[in-house]
Amino acid sequence: MDKGTVIGLVAGLGLVIVSMLMGGSVAAFFDIPSLLIVLGGTFAATLVNFPMGDVIGVMKVTQKVIKEEIMPSSKYIDQIVDISKKARTNGLLAIEEDLNNVDEDFMRVTLQHVVNGTENEDLGKLMDAELAIMTQRHKIGQRMYSAMGTYAPAFGMIGTLIGLIQMLQHLDDPASVGPGMAMAMITTFYGALFANLFFLPMAGKLKLRSEQEIQFKEMLLMGVMAIQAEESPRVIQSKLVTYLTPAERKTMAGAGEEG
Amino acid sequence: MDKGTVIGLVAGLGLVIVSMLMGGSVAAFFDIPSLLIVLGGTFAATLVNFPMGDVIGVMKVTQKVIKEEIMPSSKYIDQIVDISKKARTNGLLAIEEDLNNVDEDFMRVTLQHVVNGTENEDLGKLMDAELAIMTQRHKIGQRMYSAMGTYAPAFGMIGTLIGLIQMLQHLDDPASVGPGMAMAMITTFYGALFANLFFLPMAGKLKLRSEQEIQFKEMLLMGVMAIQAEESPRVIQSKLVTYLTPAERKTMAGAGEEG
Amino acid sequence: MDKGTVIGLVAGLGLVIVSMLMGGSVAAFFDIPSLLIVLGGTFAATLVNFPMGDVIGVMKVTQKVIKEEIMPSSKYIDQIVDISKKARTNGLLAIEEDLNNVDEDFMRVTLQHVVNGTENEDLGKLMDAELAIMTQRHKIGQRMYSAMGTYAPAFGMIGTLIGLIQMLQHLDDPASVGPGMAMAMITTFYGALFANLFFLPMAGKLKLRSEQEIQFKEMLLMGVMAIQAEESPRVIQSKLVTYLTPAERKTMAGAGEEG
Amino acid sequence: MDKGTVIGLVAGLGLVIVSMLMGGSVAAFFDIPSLLIVLGGTFAATLVNFPMGDVIGVMKVTQKVIKEEIMPSSKYIDQIVDISKKARTNGLLAIEEDLNNVDEDFMRVTLQHVVNGTENEDLGKLMDAELAIMTQRHKIGQRMYSAMGTYAPAFGMIGTLIGLIQMLQHLDDPASVGPGMAMAMITTFYGALFANLFFLPMAGKLKLRSEQEIQFKEMLLMGVMAIQAEESPRVIQSKLVTYLTPAERKTMAGAGEEG
Amino acid sequence: MDKGTVIGLVAGLGLVIVSMLMGGSVAAFFDIPSLLIVLGGTFAATLVNFPMGDVIGVMKVTQKVIKEEIMPSSKYIDQIVDISKKARTNGLLAIEEDLNNVDEDFMRVTLQHVVNGTENEDLGKLMDAELAIMTQRHKIGQRMYSAMGTYAPAFGMIGTLIGLIQMLQHLDDPASVGPGMAMAMITTFYGALFANLFFLPMAGKLKLRSEQEIQFKEMLLMGVMAIQAEESPRVIQSKLVTYLTPAERKTMAGAGEEG
Repeated sequence: MDKGTVIGLVAGLGLVIVSMLMGGSVAAFFDIPSLLIVLGGTFAATLVNFPMGDVIGVMKVTQKVIKEEIMPSSKYIDQIVDISKKARTNGLLAIEEDLNNVDEDFMRVTLQHVVNGTENEDLGKLMDAELAIMTQRHKIGQRMYSAMGTYAPAFGMIGTLIGLIQMLQHLDDPASVGPGMAMAMITTFYGALFANLFFLPMAGKLKLRSEQEIQFKEMLLMGVMAIQAEESPRVIQSKLVTYLTPAERKTMAGAGEEG
Repeated sequence: MDKGTVIGLVAGLGLVIVSMLMGGSVAAFFDIPSLLIVLGGTFAATLVNFPMGDVIGVMKVTQKVIKEEIMPSSKYIDQIVDISKKARTNGLLAIEEDLNNVDEDFMRVTLQHVVNGTENEDLGKLMDAELAIMTQRHKIGQRMYSAMGTYAPAFGMIGTLIGLIQMLQHLDDPASVGPGMAMAMITTFYGALFANLFFLPMAGKLKLRSEQEIQFKEMLLMGVMAIQAEESPRVIQSKLVTYLTPAERKTMAGAGEEG
Repeated sequence: MDKGTVIGLVAGLGLVIVSMLMGGSVAAFFDIPSLLIVLGGTFAATLVNFPMGDVIGVMKVTQKVIKEEIMPSSKYIDQIVDISKKARTNGLLAIEEDLNNVDEDFMRVTLQHVVNGTENEDLGKLMDAELAIMTQRHKIGQRMYSAMGTYAPAFGMIGTLIGLIQMLQHLDDPASVGPGMAMAMITTFYGALFANLFFLPMAGKLKLRSEQEIQFKEMLLMGVMAIQAEESPRVIQSKLVTYLTPAERKTMAGAGEEG
Repeated sequence: MDKGTVIGLVAGLGLVIVSMLMGGSVAAFFDIPSLLIVLGGTFAATLVNFPMGDVIGVMKVTQKVIKEEIMPSSKYIDQIVDISKKARTNGLLAIEEDLNNVDEDFMRVTLQHVVNGTENEDLGKLMDAELAIMTQRHKIGQRMYSAMGTYAPAFGMIGTLIGLIQMLQHLDDPASVGPGMAMAMITTFYGALFANLFFLPMAGKLKLRSEQEIQFKEMLLMGVMAIQAEESPRVIQSKLVTYLTPAERKTMAGAGEEG
Repeated sequence: MDKGTVIGLVAGLGLVIVSMLMGGSVAAFFDIPSLLIVLGGTFAATLVNFPMGDVIGVMKVTQKVIKEEIMPSSKYIDQIVDISKKARTNGLLAIEEDLNNVDEDFMRVTLQHVVNGTENEDLGKLMDAELAIMTQRHKIGQRMYSAMGTYAPAFGMIGTLIGLIQMLQHLDDPASVGPGMAMAMITTFYGALFANLFFLPMAGKLKLRSEQEIQFKEMLLMGVMAIQAEESPRVIQSKLVTYLTPAERKTMAGAGEEG
């Protein structure tokens, strides 16, 4: 469960609502038609921009971002080092029985290739291609949220223009000018809020998540290929530890000394 | 038929019209001269920016985007695997009779090269060059829509400036100020609407389509080159499957088990 | 003669003038001092930004863009194939007499190198360097127009600020407020119009022209180097045809069948 | 202690306060709720955008930027040259006793690898990977400050929209319009000030710091690898001196002549 | 002496002043406190963004840009060709006596390396590294001016917000509204003027100068390395001439024929 995303959204909305309450009521800011043109327009432009399947799929991606745990790299480094010890003692085929204990799909598939005897260079090429294509798939989610972060303020402005043009055509009643402009500006407010509290930050988080995942899988791939090349477990560990942050390294070193 | 593009455009326009109706009539937003300066100005700037032939060609590209089906990669993977089996049994020349069954131009041309005996490395270079040049051609369409997405709001603002300057020079009649400003703002409204509901999203969709097509053709090229190198059908399939999304892979695996 | 550039400029200006006429007179929009600060300021900033020689040279570049024909690649492909036939039959030195018939400077220089006996690899490096430096020279023109497209609206705004500040300091006569603001806004109007109808589209066209020219010369270089490597005319043609658009290919294939 | 950052912040705030005092009191610009929505909203959006740990870690990074000294490259060049002399005379293992005198972590770890007998090529790859991953870690700090520099003005505008909408709905009391608008604009002021005096400049400084650090470590790595390859101390020095600015070179040359 | 920079600045300022005079007096636009907040704020943000030494150094860089001559490449091509003739006849060591006649530091240092017997490949690597680091140093100047071009309008807006907020809090005296707003807008005017007439164009000029200098030094390096490889003077010349513009080539060819 990614707490940051949820806390950020709740806190941001909370602040905005408190800010409204201090100057009057929240009700004045809640207008279904305004909501409809901003969110609906954004969604319509997104449908023109992206394949329909991806637009629907973005809900799933969003859920994934909010739910998913970050992967504990150190656990997998330990597992790779353990497997490398076994492989050095009993040969590469002995890995097969460990495959079921590997709970990471990409790592298991790569190890399966090792057991199947795919050659080192071919394995590298195959898995690099897989990562490249995965990166490209991830980018669509980021681009969709970025695009929505552009379309939302634009449709906010479009809504405001509609409201202003209608108000300006009927200036007979001066008393209605203020509320008319206030009404017109609500769509701009919605556009700015959705873009800056949700769409753009989500695009940012998807980008970071994707980078983390790719880096994590590159680490796994490097580890498995080192197993295949029958490098010493010590060397493999020192290579993989490069991928950890200084903090993670200390934790791992501490655990290692105990072990 | 790309439903997303059509649905998005219709839904977006519908929402805008409903939004107008709720505040008054739609007629107030329909003004031929305003339309003329925004679309005409955008088109004129586009003519200065891009070669005339490409500007005219963009209509064709647009139709293509709205009409075209997305290519079912899995079908072609099956076909490549089938051909690779035949080539392994009967030799590369035996492919020739299958050429007529290949309904994808790029794949057929590449296979023809294999039958003609073009060497593996040469074939790779030739087809890579072809893909690189195709990518560059595709980019012109995207750039044109992006440019129109920049010029439309600019000419919207130019129209509004013309209207405002004229209104400000004749402030004698206070009653005409409101309608005058309303009129002036209609071009800004048009510019924002065309840019954000049509030009920019279309640029986005062309970009995605181009990426999909290039990736699809890279997959075909990899497959055909693997046939030429007489790799085993099983290896070829595992290479090509990398290009599928996880969902497509499952579907294909299911079909494979049945077969 | 590049018709698009001329038609675009004329049509764009025409639309703007028609739009003015419909709301009043054009005279109200013609103000020499406003023109001076926008164009003069843009030109001054450009002089600070770019070397003086390049700023003066941009006029020549602009003329070139408006006048120049697009190069008919297919004609040169035919010529290269013809020369390659001759070279295969009579040796590379036999090319010399054809040099005078080559009306493209870059191609003639490259062929001269072949006749002079420059080695294949050296020739490639030399001409690649030439193309790289040419690309960089072309970019200055694009960057200059892009910069002018940024400076023009900025000086438009600066002019408007000057006008507004002066108007606001003398609010004694309410009747002068409207015309004062109208006057002030004319520079913003000029800045937006010049930037979006001329400077930015010209930057775009220079970019496209440069890309076309580089691609064209890369094709020529590839062809000449294939002649030097004494590849078969058929192979040379199939390589060069990659650079044509599908439409051009059809035309060429048709002509080829007749020949 | 990075004086520039502190001086810049203090001077910038001072100027703003003086500017306020000259037109009235500072108190009018101090409003806790406005501060809350701008900073709180920015922070909330940042939490959605970045992993929670990184958001908290940014405080530490900021302190580091303000406190940290810039590394004196010349000192380490001298040290590397000294070690290289020893290594040439007494062999690579003789370096071990100098390890404790090396106060730079990265350099010590790399030298330790040399003592341990890691092969030259492996060492290069390992440390390059380490630098690549370090660069990526550094980028998160820069991206976070850049993002905050975008979100702060956005939430400033959101705050202003809330204030304006509330003011426009109650235009009964004309006397309250001025102060109402003034109040509403304070959030825009905060957003612009925080973004341009703190968030964006800090993003810039983190970027420069990261570049300096990476370049510094590349220099150390090049030096240590040259020691391992047992190059002559003179050659090593001339290689490393490339990394110094002309001014630093002169200082060093002067010191060298004395030595 | 770079005339363009000086002419551009003087002409730009002149135009602005003339524009002011036509609508009233210049005095109304001269306000020390406004100048202070815009330039002071920009400078403060720059200090937070860049290392203090670099901020002070930017003055020197600016002087250099305004003073410096552009390097006449053709002169150095002639010199390199002359030296290459000598080297071919009398050996590489014979170059030593010419070193004092070389007035370009980079060229002299590189030639010294040739005399010292640095190997060709090592020399290339060393000098490439030198150029890469020089490029990076140059970029800081460009980035600083670009940043100032962003901060100046931002502090202009901050100043205007301060002025507006103070004016809006005291709407008692309607007569003061106009002058108050005029005053407030002066900072926006300053920000726009400094950014678009000085900071952004200077960033552009530094970029071009840096590119020219790097390209010039790449030419020198290529020439010296060709001398070292004892290539024929004719070949060396034809390689170096690639770096000249078509106009420079003609001039040189003319001079060459006379010689």
